[in-house]
Amino acid sequence: MNRLAKLRQSLADLGLDALFIAHPENRRYLSNFRGSTGWLIISQKSALLAVDFRYVEQAQQEATEFEVVHIKGEPAKWLPELAVNLGARKIGFESNYLPFATYQKLRTVLRNCGIKLTPTDNVVESLRAIKDKEEIDSITAAAALADAAFEHARSIIRPNITEKEVAWEVEKFLRNQGSETVPFDIIVASGPNSALPHARASEKRIRENEPIVIDLGARINGYCSDLTRTIVLGSEDGVFARIYDIVLGAQLTAIATITAGMTGNEADNLARTIIEQAGYGEKFGHGLGHGVGLNPHELPRLSPDSPDVLQDNMVFTIEPGIYIPGWGGIRIEDTVVMQGGKARPLSRSAKIANTTSGGLLTR
Amino acid sequence: MNRLAKLRQSLADLGLDALFIAHPENRRYLSNFRGSTGWLIISQKSALLAVDFRYVEQAQQEATEFEVVHIKGEPAKWLPELAVNLGARKIGFESNYLPFATYQKLRTVLRNCGIKLTPTDNVVESLRAIKDKEEIDSITAAAALADAAFEHARSIIRPNITEKEVAWEVEKFLRNQGSETVPFDIIVASGPNSALPHARASEKRIRENEPIVIDLGARINGYCSDLTRTIVLGSEDGVFARIYDIVLGAQLTAIATITAGMTGNEADNLARTIIEQAGYGEKFGHGLGHGVGLNPHELPRLSPDSPDVLQDNMVFTIEPGIYIPGWGGIRIEDTVVMQGGKARPLSRSAKIANTTSGGLLTR
Repeated sequence: MNRLAKLRQSLADLGLDALFIAHPENRRYLSNFRGSTGWLIISQKSALLAVDFRYVEQAQQEATEFEVVHIKGEPAKWLPELAVNLGARKIGFESNYLPFATYQKLRTVLRNCGIKLTPTDNVVESLRAIKDKEEIDSITAAAALADAAFEHARSIIRPNITEKEVAWEVEKFLRNQGSETVPFDIIVASGPNSALPHARASEKRIRENEPIVIDLGARINGYCSDLTRTIVLGSEDGVFARIYDIVLGAQLTAIATITAGMTGNEADNLARTIIEQAGYGEKFGHGLGHGVGLNPHELPRLSPDSPDVLQDNMVFTIEPGIYIPGWGGIRIEDTVVMQGGKARPLSRSAKIANTTSGGLLTR
Repeated sequence: MNRLAKLRQSLADLGLDALFIAHPENRRYLSNFRGSTGWLIISQKSALLAVDFRYVEQAQQEATEFEVVHIKGEPAKWLPELAVNLGARKIGFESNYLPFATYQKLRTVLRNCGIKLTPTDNVVESLRAIKDKEEIDSITAAAALADAAFEHARSIIRPNITEKEVAWEVEKFLRNQGSETVPFDIIVASGPNSALPHARASEKRIRENEPIVIDLGARINGYCSDLTRTIVLGSEDGVFARIYDIVLGAQLTAIATITAGMTGNEADNLARTIIEQAGYGEKFGHGLGHGVGLNPHELPRLSPDSPDVLQDNMVFTIEPGIYIPGWGGIRIEDTVVMQGGKARPLSRSAKIANTTSGGLLTR
């Protein structure tokens, strides 16, 4: 069943005559249109792509399953007429995306035409969470490119180089090797900076014997990958060795034991329990992982409050971390795909801490 | 008056006890916090920055005028308690940014505490539209870097190079010269591709005697610039010469005649009238320009439906264009600052069409 057919099944299940879609990746997923502005209106019989002057040509080239409508101005100006022509009485909208002001204007003008505007919750995002073969192939290629980029980072990193220099060299490598932009700012965080889970690459110079967190991703055919490794130049200290073991143990355990049918909360708990029992529960302040696809962060969520059920052909990260203010942090992250009920890593970079030893940590 | 003081004046004018801010650039503008997630709650007496685990350290380092509150989970979980502690009875939110679902959850939990949630419209964006000296200095530096990047593009562009290769070389130049990321994807659009006002750089090879639109920007201290030039390799054809003249005339006229106190609609009309009278009104399908600052597109808008009043110390683009499907397009864009009631260009790249002649078009 193709994407439009699946969406139409969702519409029927929800009792909606049509869905109004504004979210960029939802739009691209359903229509293949890659422009920066446009809206979909999808009913059982019609599939419209509304774009302004700038995108009419591009939309017609890319969105071959859609009828392209040339619109002008904001949705409140043109959606009522399109909706009336579709015969829609009840239209869903993306409640997690559409700004309140847009909703409010649309509600008023649609109500004047006897049409009810109804909030929906992750209708397209839920379809996107289950990948098809082509999508998994793209993410697999993006994961391989992220692996190559990490290997490149390892080859250039040396004492006294700045975090920013490493990040920029890695970005150039990714782009030169075919990544379409980078899906998120590359993190190179050393020493105390690595205690910030979302550090930026700074002007700080990298030194020996401190943790270096490298978090990067590639994008191929629109699809992202996400990879983190933590390394040391020179020799690791005792804190590093102990914490690295805990994080690696938690990560490998989660990969080995996550199974289809678990919730995101249950999956998160597999790693969290290990880190808690080691005495660092308070230092693992983020969720275990997140879906990866057209967005670098999408469904499913793997976190203490996530009810999302993990299923075959979902792609997500597994990335426990421990962060000690003032000292630094360690995070290890793979992108994995669920297949045959188990998580299969797409990331293949070795989990080596010490770059000068050249070997895998065998502890 | 500093930014917080101005915002508090706006709160008083609107009769609000506090403003809840989720928009990333609004957050950065007021607090200096540069992380990717966080919320401000600002009243006459308090200025709170709510961040999760990942950002507590960074927030404390960057947002020195704010009290950092360590929160967990979505706003509906923690905003009521913070709002009650502030004694707020009426809280504004950003209606053009906050998703409907977030609004709906917040409204319910706040109502249970006797607090009213009220939509506001561009409160912070309106402050941001008027730049201070430091902001204008940053944009001036970003404009100079964009000029240098265009010169670099001109120096490397040659028959048979692909649009993508040029765009990537220009991006590397920008980043190597100090641009923090690029504020938008660089456009290099040649021949028929240049008829798409928001074309992507493609694998198409650039040829002689066709229009080449190059649209690029730099980012310095968070502030953007935006520059477009249209050039030809070899010699221009008769269509190019005629259309280039019209667009350049319209652009120079707009720069020369825009004055403080005009609306965005009136400013747009200065250029649009010229293009219409030349017979190409239907081929200028976008607005004349847009504000530039922390966002590459912000207030004021210069377009047929814009009531925004242009004022001193606003920074915006002036970018008329004519687009002929199948043939191509011509756009000429400067970033300008309003000072002493007039527009002063910050972009200085010569408006040269023919790269082999090396001279300014004098027609």
